[in-house]
Amino acid sequence: MSEIVKPTIEGLSCPVPLPHQERITVGHGSGGKMMHDLITKAFMKPWDNPSLRAGNDGSVISTHGHARLVVSTDAHVVSPLFFLGGDIGSLAVCGTVNDVAMMGARPLYLTASFILEEGLEIETLARVVDSMCASAKEAGVQIVAGDTKVVGKGSADGMYISTTGVGLLPDRVNIGGAEAKPGDAIILSGTLGDHGIAVLSARGALGLETELESDIAPLNDLIAKMMSASSRIHVLRDPTRGGLATTLNEIARQSNVGIVLDEGTIPIKPAVDSACELLGFDPLYIANEGKLVAIAAEEDSAKVLEVMRAHKYGHEAAVIGRIAAEPAQRVLLKTLIGSHRVVDVLMGEMLPRIC
Amino acid sequence: MSEIVKPTIEGLSCPVPLPHQERITVGHGSGGKMMHDLITKAFMKPWDNPSLRAGNDGSVISTHGHARLVVSTDAHVVSPLFFLGGDIGSLAVCGTVNDVAMMGARPLYLTASFILEEGLEIETLARVVDSMCASAKEAGVQIVAGDTKVVGKGSADGMYISTTGVGLLPDRVNIGGAEAKPGDAIILSGTLGDHGIAVLSARGALGLETELESDIAPLNDLIAKMMSASSRIHVLRDPTRGGLATTLNEIARQSNVGIVLDEGTIPIKPAVDSACELLGFDPLYIANEGKLVAIAAEEDSAKVLEVMRAHKYGHEAAVIGRIAAEPAQRVLLKTLIGSHRVVDVLMGEMLPRIC
Repeated sequence: MSEIVKPTIEGLSCPVPLPHQERITVGHGSGGKMMHDLITKAFMKPWDNPSLRAGNDGSVISTHGHARLVVSTDAHVVSPLFFLGGDIGSLAVCGTVNDVAMMGARPLYLTASFILEEGLEIETLARVVDSMCASAKEAGVQIVAGDTKVVGKGSADGMYISTTGVGLLPDRVNIGGAEAKPGDAIILSGTLGDHGIAVLSARGALGLETELESDIAPLNDLIAKMMSASSRIHVLRDPTRGGLATTLNEIARQSNVGIVLDEGTIPIKPAVDSACELLGFDPLYIANEGKLVAIAAEEDSAKVLEVMRAHKYGHEAAVIGRIAAEPAQRVLLKTLIGSHRVVDVLMGEMLPRIC
Repeated sequence: MSEIVKPTIEGLSCPVPLPHQERITVGHGSGGKMMHDLITKAFMKPWDNPSLRAGNDGSVISTHGHARLVVSTDAHVVSPLFFLGGDIGSLAVCGTVNDVAMMGARPLYLTASFILEEGLEIETLARVVDSMCASAKEAGVQIVAGDTKVVGKGSADGMYISTTGVGLLPDRVNIGGAEAKPGDAIILSGTLGDHGIAVLSARGALGLETELESDIAPLNDLIAKMMSASSRIHVLRDPTRGGLATTLNEIARQSNVGIVLDEGTIPIKPAVDSACELLGFDPLYIANEGKLVAIAAEEDSAKVLEVMRAHKYGHEAAVIGRIAAEPAQRVLLKTLIGSHRVVDVLMGEMLPRIC
């Protein structure tokens, strides 16, 4: 999409980028259209290669006749460092484990590089490291390499953590954003928006206080069970920055298909629903860190759903829509009152520093 | 080493860490003893596994009966972003390419995650990305995955870049810090300290102005040629943070050997020498980004040296010392006047944000 379109987020003023925007703004880190444009312009052109062009959560790399591997990387800058249900450490491990797993690969190894701010309490670092350890253990991955840099006071917000994951891609697995086919079912693994609202709540901003926990979780075991149940899972994606709306728009473009969602089937916790109403947010755009969208052949959707619902990270899984041939590259939401509205990508930034 | 010893850096006040230091200081990012202690305490214990324990620049990972791979990761926080001979982009690519290559592996793929500060000029980002592209091209690696996060003004210093490299380790190659053997020759690929002094000069700090360029370079081609010339290269290491002194101390400990250097054989540019004299620095502790130390069987040292001197990144290569059985875990420098002094690891921080 080259046109600049207005976002569909109610109650928000999303800045429309200038044609020749010359400085980085928070909107460039949103996961939405501004970030997409920046990445296309600043990175994809100079670095162009098939892995980047595929636009998936991870890249498939070959090792010269040996195994196919998947690598994926993410920087984590969440603020605050700790919140209900998680912290920057569990986020850094689970986020990257999930990106590797969304390619259908089995995550095996992680690397972690830390940027620490002078003055950070070592006790705080220790808590984060322990949390990474626990998440890595649950996910069954080893953290095999790391790096630590220290920057002066004010040059980082406590700490930033970049993680890179390496996973093994089984033969014949071909899961990716371009594989959705008309007729496929769209399955969401659970409730939307828990992570974003939990982080926002931890900021104490906007007078919001909830007991809501982030959904941060490693989803590789869930995915392994789904893949055992069906060989016709075409797309797996975790709706992080930019939320489900942005993720589905990416898939619609990559696969050149239409997506039709049924609003009444999308699981949302009452606490998220009321927080969003209060703040003027749309849960479809809120970041999640322990949820996935699976697009699978309709014939297999019942058995995929069954294994998901039997798993602790998928017991609220639901079929939330279908892939259609038309309208190509668009996401439509059939609302509760029966009308259809276009669900666009996130334009600017809704919640900075959410992951 | 559990004891806390004074550093041997003349003219510098290196803070001796308190036994129960509770906050991160710039010294924790130095590459020296404080960083080593932090890593041991904060990361190695909770994450303990053989790859981390090996303490090399990269980790060898297996892919379940397929190829042996090497992964390595580094965060880059150099300040300023641009300096003579390089920038944060060339540093981020070459630094990680070199860490993978120092394991004897052939670097193939990189990932890059960016933390961008709000307000950064996109033109600046574009220059850095172009620079990464040029370095990746020279090194023959592909940048296959990336991530971009944006933090608010003041929460990063322009940008930080974390890169992770993946390389293929040929069969039977076993290069690592624990492989040095008494009698081995120690070969340095060129002059010491160029990078550190070039960055310092770009800061305009300390009244220092030089035309000296950083030595940033991808060393994988040089290493490939060295490995073709000899199958008895036991250790390869790039003396980055903490400089040659710290790197050799690490090797002395890992291999449980003594190292004896001959001061008169260590190549140092006159500009680096005078800058160090002026500032009270010891070139042995200054960071390099395009140099390597090779420890090889004495019988092969002449042919290794020959291919190094024929290479553009090794034409000033020299044998600078020998591995000895004693004094175990110590580095000694035979000075120009014939005395011996102990060369210890860097203790605190000499030049923060050098890489």
